[in-house]
Amino acid sequence: MKIRELQEYMKENKIDLSIFMNSSLNKKDSNLIYFSQVDLEYATLAITQSKETLFVPRLEYENVKRNSVIKDIELPKKRISLSIKNKFKNKIKKIGVNTKILSLEEYRQLKNIFKGAKLVDISGYCSELRITKTKKEINYIKKACQITDKILQNCLNHFNFKTEAEVAAYLDSQIKKNGCEPAFRTIVASGKNASQPHYQSKDIKLNKGFCVIDFGAKYKNYCADITRTIFIGKPSQNEIKIYNNLLNAQQSSIERVKENMDCSQLDNFARKKLGKYGKNFIHSLGHGIGIDIHELPNVSNKAKNKLKNNMIFTIEPGIYVENKYGIRIEDDILLNKDKAEVLTKTTKELIKV
Amino acid sequence: MKIRELQEYMKENKIDLSIFMNSSLNKKDSNLIYFSQVDLEYATLAITQSKETLFVPRLEYENVKRNSVIKDIELPKKRISLSIKNKFKNKIKKIGVNTKILSLEEYRQLKNIFKGAKLVDISGYCSELRITKTKKEINYIKKACQITDKILQNCLNHFNFKTEAEVAAYLDSQIKKNGCEPAFRTIVASGKNASQPHYQSKDIKLNKGFCVIDFGAKYKNYCADITRTIFIGKPSQNEIKIYNNLLNAQQSSIERVKENMDCSQLDNFARKKLGKYGKNFIHSLGHGIGIDIHELPNVSNKAKNKLKNNMIFTIEPGIYVENKYGIRIEDDILLNKDKAEVLTKTTKELIKV
Repeated sequence: MKIRELQEYMKENKIDLSIFMNSSLNKKDSNLIYFSQVDLEYATLAITQSKETLFVPRLEYENVKRNSVIKDIELPKKRISLSIKNKFKNKIKKIGVNTKILSLEEYRQLKNIFKGAKLVDISGYCSELRITKTKKEINYIKKACQITDKILQNCLNHFNFKTEAEVAAYLDSQIKKNGCEPAFRTIVASGKNASQPHYQSKDIKLNKGFCVIDFGAKYKNYCADITRTIFIGKPSQNEIKIYNNLLNAQQSSIERVKENMDCSQLDNFARKKLGKYGKNFIHSLGHGIGIDIHELPNVSNKAKNKLKNNMIFTIEPGIYVENKYGIRIEDDILLNKDKAEVLTKTTKELIKV
Repeated sequence: MKIRELQEYMKENKIDLSIFMNSSLNKKDSNLIYFSQVDLEYATLAITQSKETLFVPRLEYENVKRNSVIKDIELPKKRISLSIKNKFKNKIKKIGVNTKILSLEEYRQLKNIFKGAKLVDISGYCSELRITKTKKEINYIKKACQITDKILQNCLNHFNFKTEAEVAAYLDSQIKKNGCEPAFRTIVASGKNASQPHYQSKDIKLNKGFCVIDFGAKYKNYCADITRTIFIGKPSQNEIKIYNNLLNAQQSSIERVKENMDCSQLDNFARKKLGKYGKNFIHSLGHGIGIDIHELPNVSNKAKNKLKNNMIFTIEPGIYVENKYGIRIEDDILLNKDKAEVLTKTTKELIKV
């Protein structure tokens, strides 16, 4: 996506080369996926003002040849740094890098390959480029949301699970059957476990009470992200009241969405709407989704972003009471012609199972 | 694991503080998981010569309190850098970091917090610490292998799948039902797709011919990794011959394993054993497993490691013919009292389905 825009930016800022490196299984520069449209464990993407090249190991070659938008593919024979050096014989004076992901070791490698070159951070520019989505990206995310909705609806319609792990297993296997990957680690948190927003589902019997289900499919590298809270057993009047309070805050927040609104304003609005439960809402209202499951805009009370058309982000207030319960409701929102288009469509009525 | 060993090393090398930072969803310092024994998306682990502290956001607090071996937990109120600064008032002169994962931005943060301090790379030392496994780690990996074997055997006994994605979905869902996570993205590659060692399973009909199944469960953060190649349809005499050639190379390599052997020697042995197919073996013979799915030792022809007791690593020769077929057989090996103990026990006879 948007390689031409990056190249224009490079010209304006006299950047000769932008480099994105994935050289460890434990880190991944998602800008490499964004620009190449292929998810690679080991690769380096080098973009000059007029050309783009992917350096990949032999075992990724066929995959890249078939799936990437980048057509100039190099197979480094020995060390990748040598191949990069040989490729760019012209004087490289200024290099754009992602300082949030580029490791100190890679930084030193680049300094060594391009002696005297200045490295500048382009991570902010790349994030801004990705903050609004192209038509193609919107279609991918819509498709990811459709698949996610279908799976969740089937799950809720035939809810016959005994353990948290069984629910998570069902959701993940359906994602796979649809040719997708989980966008992140699926959360199924029942009873007091749900008071941990990032709880890891366990092979334990589903507790009675609220149960938070938070998951999403990744379709062609683009994420969906939905949360629904269901009730296992029969909720008390008070529990129904708390749930409806949250639902009301979530829906009112969606209705508030409009272009040029401050993200912090929306977050504060939701917090206020939660009334006395505002203090139990221990994370931000939402986050952008795209290649990454968390990207710009941050919909938080500290954020400086404004909402713009073609942004896609979550709205997900929650109420957490330590060691007692947790509830959260989350939708994916496309800001389309000044209005919130809700991409996730599964019912938000409190489902009892 | 082995925090005391790290602290001894720090004393010997006059390192005042070791810091491991996970500050982006797109990178993860597995040393943080290794030393804290908890898998955290956002956290900083700071180890002095006598004490260890985990800095975590509020939403990870309960998880850490319950599951980590680290008992000193800090909840940074504002910026994490401020909390770190306040915690370590004594003069910090020398800081150990993992230069393979520490980002340029984190590096600059540390330089700013600890003005004048020298940063030294301890990634090599940490990898060496992790290269041999403790009893506890061996038990975790054995358990991961047992779960993986059981799932694969069930899969092969009732092989009634139509698409690659269905097989992958079955394996992943069984991993989840066992309360584990996939150790890496499950590979099911049929027919000519298998000529890509890192192929991504698709929602497409299983092709006739060889089908590579490569997956593993992660149990308590420790990985298993197994590959079996089955045959869909009826193999020709030549196909059986190629398979047996590979199996023979794999088994002979396992038998060759002994303490103090050069890893490169073992890799070269397997390559030679493959005869004319050696040129189609386009990756290394194996790799260590542990918290990471790829860690030391590298069992490759470029590696400098020697095999030592209590190392756990894969042996996985493969034959790949572009656009035609791919086959691979992989076991996890514990070097135990100078002998290879095979931890993965699923049959290696060519199964036809």
